[in-house]
Amino acid sequence: MPIVTLTTDFGEGSRYVAAMKGVIYSLAPDVTLVDLTHAVPPQDIAAGAMALEEMTCWFPAGTLHVAVVDPGVGSDRRLVYVEIGSQRYLCPDNGLLTCLAAREPPRKIVEVSNPALWAPTVSRTFHGRDILAPVAARLATGLPVDEVGATRQGGSLITIPLTRGRRVGQRIDGRVVEVDSFGNLITDITATDLADTPRDESVTVTCDGHFTVGIYGAYSDQPEMTLIALIGSGGRLELAIVNDSAADMLGVRPGAPVRVDWG
Amino acid sequence: MPIVTLTTDFGEGSRYVAAMKGVIYSLAPDVTLVDLTHAVPPQDIAAGAMALEEMTCWFPAGTLHVAVVDPGVGSDRRLVYVEIGSQRYLCPDNGLLTCLAAREPPRKIVEVSNPALWAPTVSRTFHGRDILAPVAARLATGLPVDEVGATRQGGSLITIPLTRGRRVGQRIDGRVVEVDSFGNLITDITATDLADTPRDESVTVTCDGHFTVGIYGAYSDQPEMTLIALIGSGGRLELAIVNDSAADMLGVRPGAPVRVDWG
Amino acid sequence: MPIVTLTTDFGEGSRYVAAMKGVIYSLAPDVTLVDLTHAVPPQDIAAGAMALEEMTCWFPAGTLHVAVVDPGVGSDRRLVYVEIGSQRYLCPDNGLLTCLAAREPPRKIVEVSNPALWAPTVSRTFHGRDILAPVAARLATGLPVDEVGATRQGGSLITIPLTRGRRVGQRIDGRVVEVDSFGNLITDITATDLADTPRDESVTVTCDGHFTVGIYGAYSDQPEMTLIALIGSGGRLELAIVNDSAADMLGVRPGAPVRVDWG
Repeated sequence: MPIVTLTTDFGEGSRYVAAMKGVIYSLAPDVTLVDLTHAVPPQDIAAGAMALEEMTCWFPAGTLHVAVVDPGVGSDRRLVYVEIGSQRYLCPDNGLLTCLAAREPPRKIVEVSNPALWAPTVSRTFHGRDILAPVAARLATGLPVDEVGATRQGGSLITIPLTRGRRVGQRIDGRVVEVDSFGNLITDITATDLADTPRDESVTVTCDGHFTVGIYGAYSDQPEMTLIALIGSGGRLELAIVNDSAADMLGVRPGAPVRVDWG
Repeated sequence: MPIVTLTTDFGEGSRYVAAMKGVIYSLAPDVTLVDLTHAVPPQDIAAGAMALEEMTCWFPAGTLHVAVVDPGVGSDRRLVYVEIGSQRYLCPDNGLLTCLAAREPPRKIVEVSNPALWAPTVSRTFHGRDILAPVAARLATGLPVDEVGATRQGGSLITIPLTRGRRVGQRIDGRVVEVDSFGNLITDITATDLADTPRDESVTVTCDGHFTVGIYGAYSDQPEMTLIALIGSGGRLELAIVNDSAADMLGVRPGAPVRVDWG
Repeated sequence: MPIVTLTTDFGEGSRYVAAMKGVIYSLAPDVTLVDLTHAVPPQDIAAGAMALEEMTCWFPAGTLHVAVVDPGVGSDRRLVYVEIGSQRYLCPDNGLLTCLAAREPPRKIVEVSNPALWAPTVSRTFHGRDILAPVAARLATGLPVDEVGATRQGGSLITIPLTRGRRVGQRIDGRVVEVDSFGNLITDITATDLADTPRDESVTVTCDGHFTVGIYGAYSDQPEMTLIALIGSGGRLELAIVNDSAADMLGVRPGAPVRVDWG
C-alpha cells in the first residue's frame, strides 16, 4: 500500500488535520500516513507549491501526496489527481503544483468528480476532509484511478506566477522567498542559475543593504556570526548568519531583493 | 489492533509526548499511534473537551483516544476508561468528556484502578506516561476491559459547565470559544441552534462591535478581506475575514460576545 | 524491524524533517518512524543532549534514535553510531550524547564512514538527509552495524560541559536549564542531589529573587497560582506556578540561578 502524505496550511496541531486522518484511517486502516508540513502560511499557494517541490521528491515512487491550501474551497475551483514523475498528488487545481509541473509536465491529470467516493455530506468549507481524504484512502487501498473522474485530455493545470532569479550579464537579480526555521533566507536563485558563476571573492551577494563576498558550501566554512551566502540543501542560494538567525539579525523578510554580482 | 490517539496540552514537540509514545511502543510495538493535537492550551479542560468532540468522531469504530489535560494530577481525581458511541477514551475524570457525553450518554465507564497494569513506579506529576500509556498499550494488544478496574455502576462522569448559544425570540446570544489557525472566530452557536434562522440579509451577526449580514456557506462566497459569518466544518457558527485573520484584524479573542438577530 | 525516531532542531513542521522521512521510507517502507521532537532550539547541542536523555529511555530495546543538531555540518566533525544501554543512536559526534554517556558508558561506537551507504550526492549542509537517514533506514532493515564503518577502539565521544547542581554543606546551587511548555522551570538539580534533603518547610528554594518553602510531590498539592517546588517527572527539581506559567509570571529564563537551603 502506498504511503499517503499530508501538506496543509492548517497549522501544526490543528484539529482539521486530525479529522482528515480519522477519515483516511476509517477507510484505509493499514495506511502509512506522513505529515509533510502543516506550517504553510494560511492561503499561501506559492509557499505550498515550493514546499511540495522540495519535499515530495524524496518519497518512494507511487507515494500519494494530499495537499490542502485551498482559499477557493466552496467556489468552482476544481480538485485534481495528478501524476508527475514518480509521485502522485491530490489537491485543488489552484497553482499548488506550479513548481513541480514547471520541472516536468504531468503524465496524467484526472478530475476529482465522482461523488460516490466522497463523504455522504460534503461541507462547503472543508473539501480536504470530505473529498480529498476519502478519495486518497480509496486510492491507497487499490481503487483504479479511472474511478476518481475523467482524465483531463491534453489539459494543463492552473499555474501561479513564480518569482525566479533573472540574469542580466554578470549579475542575477532575485528575491528572498522563504525564511526557514533557522532564520536562513532562502532565495529564488537556484544552483542552476549559478552554474557558471564564480564562487570565490570576486562574487558579491547583496540583500536589502547587507552584503557578503563569496559563495560557500557549508555554514561551518565561516566563523560564528558571519553573514554567509551558500547553496542550501534545497538547491537554492541562501543567506545565513552562521549559528544565528539572519532573518532576526538583519530584519529581512520574504520579498526582500537579492543580487549576485561578479566580474 | 485498534488505533491509539493522543490529545494533550503538552505543546507540539513536547518531550512529554515522546515519553508516552515510548511507553506505548514498548508494550505494543505494532500499534498505530496518531497525534490528534498537543496544542490544547495548558490546563484548559473545556478546550480539550471541544477538541475531542470535534476530532474523535472521524475515527474508525473502536479507536482508543488517550487524552491528558490534567491539572489535578496527583490529587484524588479519578482516571477513567469510557465508551461513547463507537469510540473509546482513556483520560482523567475531570470534564474532558463533557461535550461528547452531552451528545450521547456513555455506554460504559470503568475506573482505571488496577495498578498491576501501570508502570512499576508512578510519578505523581505524570499519570499520562505512567498509568494511561501502559493501560492504553495493553488494551490495544487485547487486554479485556474488565481488568482495567471496576465498572462504575449507574455512574456518571464529572462535567464542566459549557458555554452554549442561548436563544431569546428572534435572537441568539453566544460567545467566541476558539480561534483556529486561520484566525477564524469559532462560536458556541451550533448549526442546530440556527436550524430555522434565515440565512439571507435579514440576519445580522454582531461580534464585539463588528457586524455582518447574512450567513454564508463558504469563505469564497464573498470577496477577499470581507467579514463573513458562516457555519464552519465543525458545525458551529464562525466569523471569518475572507483570506485573512479575523482574530488579528478585529482584535477579538475567545470569550467575546456574539449575537445573531433577525426579524 | 526496530522503531526509528527523529530528534532535530529543525522546528515542528519543517520541510527538512519531511525530506529525511522521505529518504527513510524510500529505503525502509515498513519502518515505524516516530518524531521525538523537532523543537530543540537551533544549534543548541546541550538542549538536544538533555532531550535525548529524557526521552529515549522510554523506548523499546533496540530502537534507533537519529538526532540532528549539527552546527558543524560540512566541517570535519564526525558522525557516529553509538549503543548505550538498550538504545542505539545515530548523530554527529558533537556532544549530543553527553548526558546519556555520563549515565552509562557507550557499549559500542562506530564511525559513520562507509559512503556506499549514503546518498549518491551528499550536500555539505544536510548530512541528516544525505547520510544519517539512509544509514538509519539500512540499519532498520537489517544491515550489520559493521558495514557502517570502523569501530572506534577504546574510543570516547566528544562531550560538552554540563551544568550540574553543586552541593556545599546544607545547600545546593544550580540553574534553570529549560522552560517546558507549561512554563515550568526545570533545573539541573536532580532527585539524586536531593536524596537526603528534607522536603518539609525547613527547606527553602530560591530562584532569581523568588522563593518558596518545601519540596512537594504534585502540582495539585498546593492551591492555584502558588509558586511550588517539586521533583518533576523527569527526575529534576522544578519550580512551577500551579496552573499557570512560572516563566511568564516570574520573568525567569534558562540560566537563572536556583538555590536549595535547609538546616
